[in-house]
Formats: sequence, C-alpha cells, structure tokens
Amino acid sequence: VADRGLQFGDGVFETMLCHAGAPLDFDAHWARLRHGCDRLGFACPDVRPAVIEAVRRHADRRAVAKLIVTRGCSQRGYRAAVDPVANWILTLSEAPKVDPRIYETGVAVTVCRTRLAREDDRLVGLKHLNRLTQVLARSEWADEFHDGLLLDHGGAVVEGSASNVFTVTKGALVTPDLATGGVNGIVRRRVLAHARATDLSVQERTLTRAELESADEVFLTNSVYGVVPVRSIGFTRYPVGAVARRMLDAIDPGHHFSTIHGSAG
Amino acid sequence: VADRGLQFGDGVFETMLCHAGAPLDFDAHWARLRHGCDRLGFACPDVRPAVIEAVRRHADRRAVAKLIVTRGCSQRGYRAAVDPVANWILTLSEAPKVDPRIYETGVAVTVCRTRLAREDDRLVGLKHLNRLTQVLARSEWADEFHDGLLLDHGGAVVEGSASNVFTVTKGALVTPDLATGGVNGIVRRRVLAHARATDLSVQERTLTRAELESADEVFLTNSVYGVVPVRSIGFTRYPVGAVARRMLDAIDPGHHFSTIHGSAG
Repeated sequence: VADRGLQFGDGVFETMLCHAGAPLDFDAHWARLRHGCDRLGFACPDVRPAVIEAVRRHADRRAVAKLIVTRGCSQRGYRAAVDPVANWILTLSEAPKVDPRIYETGVAVTVCRTRLAREDDRLVGLKHLNRLTQVLARSEWADEFHDGLLLDHGGAVVEGSASNVFTVTKGALVTPDLATGGVNGIVRRRVLAHARATDLSVQERTLTRAELESADEVFLTNSVYGVVPVRSIGFTRYPVGAVARRMLDAIDPGHHFSTIHGSAG
Repeated sequence: VADRGLQFGDGVFETMLCHAGAPLDFDAHWARLRHGCDRLGFACPDVRPAVIEAVRRHADRRAVAKLIVTRGCSQRGYRAAVDPVANWILTLSEAPKVDPRIYETGVAVTVCRTRLAREDDRLVGLKHLNRLTQVLARSEWADEFHDGLLLDHGGAVVEGSASNVFTVTKGALVTPDLATGGVNGIVRRRVLAHARATDLSVQERTLTRAELESADEVFLTNSVYGVVPVRSIGFTRYPVGAVARRMLDAIDPGHHFSTIHGSAG
C-alpha cells in the first residue's frame, strides 16, 4: 500500500500479446518501458529474463502479459526517494475473445465525450499509470463499440481509449502527431515504419474531426488486436480499404493477431 | 495487484491532519471524498466509523491520516464492473516536522517548470489518484522550498503541488477559480467562506503570473499546514500581511495547525 503506483500512478506499464509462449514485439515494448522510466526519472530494473521465463512457462497461445513498473515505495507526500527501488508486477491473463471476422469487415467505433487531458510535455506519449481519462472514456459504452476515440480540448482527434488511430485520405496515411497527448503505440510505430519503407505518403499531424469523417479509410492499432479496420464511427461508414489490408498483411506477419484471436473459435 | 487504484489511478484520496485523536474537518473531507467517488461513478463505502476509531486509537497529536478509496478490482482493461466493490486504505503517519515560525515569517516558494495537466471537466477539482504531474513538480526541488506553484498550459497560476494559492491585491482576496484544473481544497473553502462572511472582497478567477508577482500578500492553504504565508517566490519578496494573519487566526481556531506543528519543536 506504500507503493507509489497506487499512491500517485507513479509508474508505467506495457500490455503485450503472447504467442507461442513469447511476448510479441518484446524488444519494442521493453524499450518503451525503459524510456518511460527514464522520463519519470527512475531506474528500470532489468526484469526481461523473469518476464520471458514466466511467459514461456505460463502463457498459452492466447495470453496477454501486462507488466507494470513503479517508482517503488515511499513515505506520504509526492517527494520520492533519491534512489528509489522500483517495484514490478507481471500479470498474465487470457487474451480477449475476438471474432476474427473483424479483420475483414471492420469494427464500430464511437467518439467519446471525455476529453483527453493535455499533460506536461514530459508525460506526453508515455504509457504511464495515470489512466483516469481512459477509464472515464471506456465507461461511455458497454459492448456495442470496439473502442472510443478521444478528442483533445481543441476538438482534434488524438487516439482511441486503448488504440492509436489512422486515416487514409487520397492515398495518404494520416495519424495524430501526439504532440500534446496520446500514447506512442508499438503497432503505430510499425505501421509508420512500413508505410515509409514502402513509399506511402505519411503525415503525422493534427487530425481534425472533419477530416476523420471524410476519410477514405480508418483503422486502429494496438498491441493486443494489431491492425483493426474501422467500418463505422457514429453514423459515418467506411470501407475496409487497400491500405488497411496492406497493413494487416505487413504488420501481422503470419497473421499473428488474427490467428491468435481466431483460435478463440 | 488487480486493484484499479494501482492499475489506472482509478480512485480518490484525502489527507487529514489529526489532532487529539480526531481528523480535523473530517465532515468536509468525507463530503469531498464521496463527491469524488460520485464523479468517478462508483459508490463510496461508509468507512467513517472505522476511520474515526482508527484515528482515535492510533493517531497521536501529530498524525496525518491518508484515506484512499478506489473503484476496486477488475480484469485487465479500462472497463470497470457495473457494480464494483470499492477498496479503501487508511494510512496513519507522523505529521511533518514544521518550524512554527513559518506562520510568522512565511515560507519560500518556487514556480515549477512542470505544467498542470488540463483534464476532462469531470476530473477537475477532484483529489484523484492520477498525481504524476504533482510528482514531477515535486521533483524540481529538495528542501529549499515549502512548495512549488503550478502553471497551466496558458501560463496562469493554478495551485501549488500540494496546496492552493491566494493573493491579496489592493485589499481583495484572489484565488484561481479551478475551472480547468487544480484541487478544490478544504482549507481553501474555509478561507473563501470566512472572507465572504466578513465582507472581504473575493475574486475566484484566472490568476496571471504578473498578478502574482505584483501582489501585496501571498499565502498557501492545505489540510496539513493550514494557512501558510509566503515570504518569497523566486526573487520576489512578500510581507506577511494583515489578510494572511486574519486567516491564520480565523481558520486555525485555537491555532491547531501551528500548535500541532509547534509541538514538534
């Protein structure tokens, strides 16, 4: 109960899909976790061997591993120890049951009333433990949507409550630049890298709601679901387009995501 | 480890100075805690008897009681149970040792580089568990300042990392209106109520940094220290003025705060 993760949300986390006893993209997740600890100003313990071994021994083909690292314990008050001893928690759980057809037909998405917080610049992009905004956003629907999009206080589209968002307009891939908020997702980075490697036009910039509504394609990315095409946002409908399919093929080699979820039957 | 307080900072807390075996202003703290749970959308368990009894039995004259209430446990993911069972944690610790002369001479304060997050409207004013901004702010100094003031992204003064802030200019009491951020402090409310009851001019509004620098008096409020006059912010010096003294006398009946802290000496 003295842990600063509980007291203040003073820590970071990663959520990783596990396949065949190993976390997918573990190096990228690990690098982001370390970067988050650096930005928050505490040393990240090297728990990689313990995580890999735990996932190998206990995670079946459809597991999700969640790794939390906090600044550790302290007395009451915001001030941290100079050399804190970080705590870490690994939780393995069953992967969500997903109808694999979502990768062919797309998912329904809503736009949340909850506005994304504008944080201090040092917190932007981090997958830290201050997630009340996402909790409030997620409370806006039950099962009827795959995710909800969050707007910033200026009305721009930033991300989903648990995903990054991409649009395709006139052949160009557009995603919010995360300059003032949002999580720098692992699959997001892979999509951007693949797009640049294949000379697709890429724009990381402010994405307005009007642009979202008039987009030719929309898709979401996240580490549990991979690339997920969007078929509707509110009353606006979208086709599952060529770019989303291309990303599904490229980012999901061997169709890890859809294979894993497909095995749910 | 499944508690949503740790997972997401999904909860609220109160910090109460205890005097003679009872938490000061307990009714006001309790009302704020309940209001916070309401805003976050979960039922607050009535732990008042347990808190009062624990403080009576275990808290000496100089204790601080910290009460955390979280939405309880859930599976991985932001979605909460429909009827969550809240968890609560009460921690009693020794009150900080304070030189009682700070109430006569004032304290030194800094202005933080860390900017206060602009949150969703439903979170503004709550003492919730998403406190990374305050943790970053508090990391900017060691012991040389009593507190650090936080500016919003527009550069306005909102609060201290662990206090509310008041200025006095030409006889009028000014405090930030907390429209877009900040905690609605218990002592802050008492100061405002006393000022209104005694026909002091009161302005709850945006407070610019320039106004802060040119103020006649500045003081901070918080539940552990009460009303604390500010003698300097950076290179700007302030006298301990008549309004601060008046609030010290009025808000601290019997000089609870200074007496409690004085007994440390």
